Amino acid sequence: MIIKHSRGEYPIWFEPYSDFQAGLQGPFVVITDENVHSAHGHLLPSGIPTLILPPGEATKSIECYSRCLDWLGELPLTRNGTVVALGGGVIGDLVGFVAATYMRGVAFVQVPTTLLAQVDSSIGGKVGIDLPAGKNLAGAFHPPSAVCVSGEFLATLPPRQFVNGTAEVWKAAYIRDESLLTRLRAGALSLDSQDLQQCIISALMIKQQVVEQDEFETTGLRAQLNFGHTIGHAIEKALDYEGLLHGEAVSIGMVVEAQIGEALSITRPGTSEEIKADMIKQGLPITIPESISVDTLLHAMARDKKVTQSGLSFSFLTQIGTCKLCQGLNSVEISRILSDIA
Amino acid sequence: MIIKHSRGEYPIWFEPYSDFQAGLQGPFVVITDENVHSAHGHLLPSGIPTLILPPGEATKSIECYSRCLDWLGELPLTRNGTVVALGGGVIGDLVGFVAATYMRGVAFVQVPTTLLAQVDSSIGGKVGIDLPAGKNLAGAFHPPSAVCVSGEFLATLPPRQFVNGTAEVWKAAYIRDESLLTRLRAGALSLDSQDLQQCIISALMIKQQVVEQDEFETTGLRAQLNFGHTIGHAIEKALDYEGLLHGEAVSIGMVVEAQIGEALSITRPGTSEEIKADMIKQGLPITIPESISVDTLLHAMARDKKVTQSGLSFSFLTQIGTCKLCQGLNSVEISRILSDIA
Repeated sequence: MIIKHSRGEYPIWFEPYSDFQAGLQGPFVVITDENVHSAHGHLLPSGIPTLILPPGEATKSIECYSRCLDWLGELPLTRNGTVVALGGGVIGDLVGFVAATYMRGVAFVQVPTTLLAQVDSSIGGKVGIDLPAGKNLAGAFHPPSAVCVSGEFLATLPPRQFVNGTAEVWKAAYIRDESLLTRLRAGALSLDSQDLQQCIISALMIKQQVVEQDEFETTGLRAQLNFGHTIGHAIEKALDYEGLLHGEAVSIGMVVEAQIGEALSITRPGTSEEIKADMIKQGLPITIPESISVDTLLHAMARDKKVTQSGLSFSFLTQIGTCKLCQGLNSVEISRILSDIA
Repeated sequence: MIIKHSRGEYPIWFEPYSDFQAGLQGPFVVITDENVHSAHGHLLPSGIPTLILPPGEATKSIECYSRCLDWLGELPLTRNGTVVALGGGVIGDLVGFVAATYMRGVAFVQVPTTLLAQVDSSIGGKVGIDLPAGKNLAGAFHPPSAVCVSGEFLATLPPRQFVNGTAEVWKAAYIRDESLLTRLRAGALSLDSQDLQQCIISALMIKQQVVEQDEFETTGLRAQLNFGHTIGHAIEKALDYEGLLHGEAVSIGMVVEAQIGEALSITRPGTSEEIKADMIKQGLPITIPESISVDTLLHAMARDKKVTQSGLSFSFLTQIGTCKLCQGLNSVEISRILSDIA
């Protein structure tokens, strides 16, 4: 599978990491986290420079970004070197941003070790870190030079982390792929699913179609991938990124955004109930935590990158399989709808 | 004057800043330094959000980068806003990097207030910050949406800062413009030169030709602009960026690199003596400070971005008016030549 972008293209390899690593050209170094290193560090060649960061969203900070840059600065790595991002979305986003900016850009490869990163964040070239004011507020578009999607990493994932990743597979199905949805509805996705890799590929192909047509999120097409994310990000922010995983927040976000879409007569009635049933079957949450008030949610949304001067932005399903970007939505109206839902 | 790049183009305006500011579209905020704000802050509209940083190279740090991002994060600025970089090269490079990465890229305009920034760093799209391991080691290519080059800022420059900027004008002449060199040799450049703006435009046109043809420094053409800079940067680094200004280090670098080029039979004999005479007339230094040993210089060069695995990289004059990128030079040989020169 090949992803094209404005300055070239990169392959997605579906193979054991050791085969992928054996094919890497030139000198490379590895940045990973403690959990991934404990489980998979033995796959790395001995003597390869490796930076091991603490696990968790807090690692997507300017402090860890600075630490990575200083670490690279002390190595004999030149512009010809490659940085391997071995980990989940946090490591991929952080290391991608480090690679995007170290020496104004060096090569990096994504080795996503969570389902969430394999189906979503490792492709498309969006990299970045969080700021106190919001998630992913500093970043760049920096495509990897290759991505290695390998099933061996999923086997060591905690079950909750696996289920977390399924939310983005469902999202891909909801926005663009009814046949994937039919498959998912036939039985919740699990590590034992015979067709797990095929479902991952289906989700990746949807992301591929979208990011190839709108790499820099300028036409509104790529923004369609944000279905569930306007609310999802606001929930994560309101919780200070604690308690709920990203996919869990997106699961709630998809249900709530379908409800908002229905209230605005954009989404076909009944869609939110279908999504609710799917998410329950997959073991994902469907309601906004009671600790978050509508006002808190609105305040969190107001600081999102997706906000323009003219108002809030949502990717609403029109019906299962298609969606539409709606910009400039009035926050008072959204607030009223959210209060009605709650 | 228009500069083209891979994703569009931007104009360079030669006009008073207030006219330029009046033409800015949409909301904007200003980042500047204490010195520039003291001298020119009255030009800013009242109430415009303005971040005033300490002056000096130390401001091109990850700490100030983080401070700028956090400041932007607290403002109601959206992706449609513009950041004005009002200051010298330090402010331009830092603010450009902030704009390149805030929300994965917002618009910024360069308002260079030093001669050095007007003729060099404000165009070409290279932005970045320094790391402990080296200058400009973190950065991006992020073209401004406009540049305003206005003589009013030069009037308040300390004389040494003005002379500092002339080094890059001379460099432009040496590498590509004999007619500009003829003009410069007719009388050192000063604030009173009747044709100062014309000389600035000539230097900018040379940079324009080069960066339009090799925006991302991949073909070797843009690297030709580094004449004087391999040695110049190493001197700055060896001095820990104190004592000598950038143009002063480049002045020494041009003399020494001409000497090295002559020793390697790449540069026409006598060129270094001509450059020496020019620099003396312009009031710029020509010899490496005695406190810096050849070993220290070589060590500093080894950490430069211009180094590849195969060795050192220099842009050598072949003769006045033309130059050539030489890569993979052996550091032992360069060390021997530097010892002979000293």
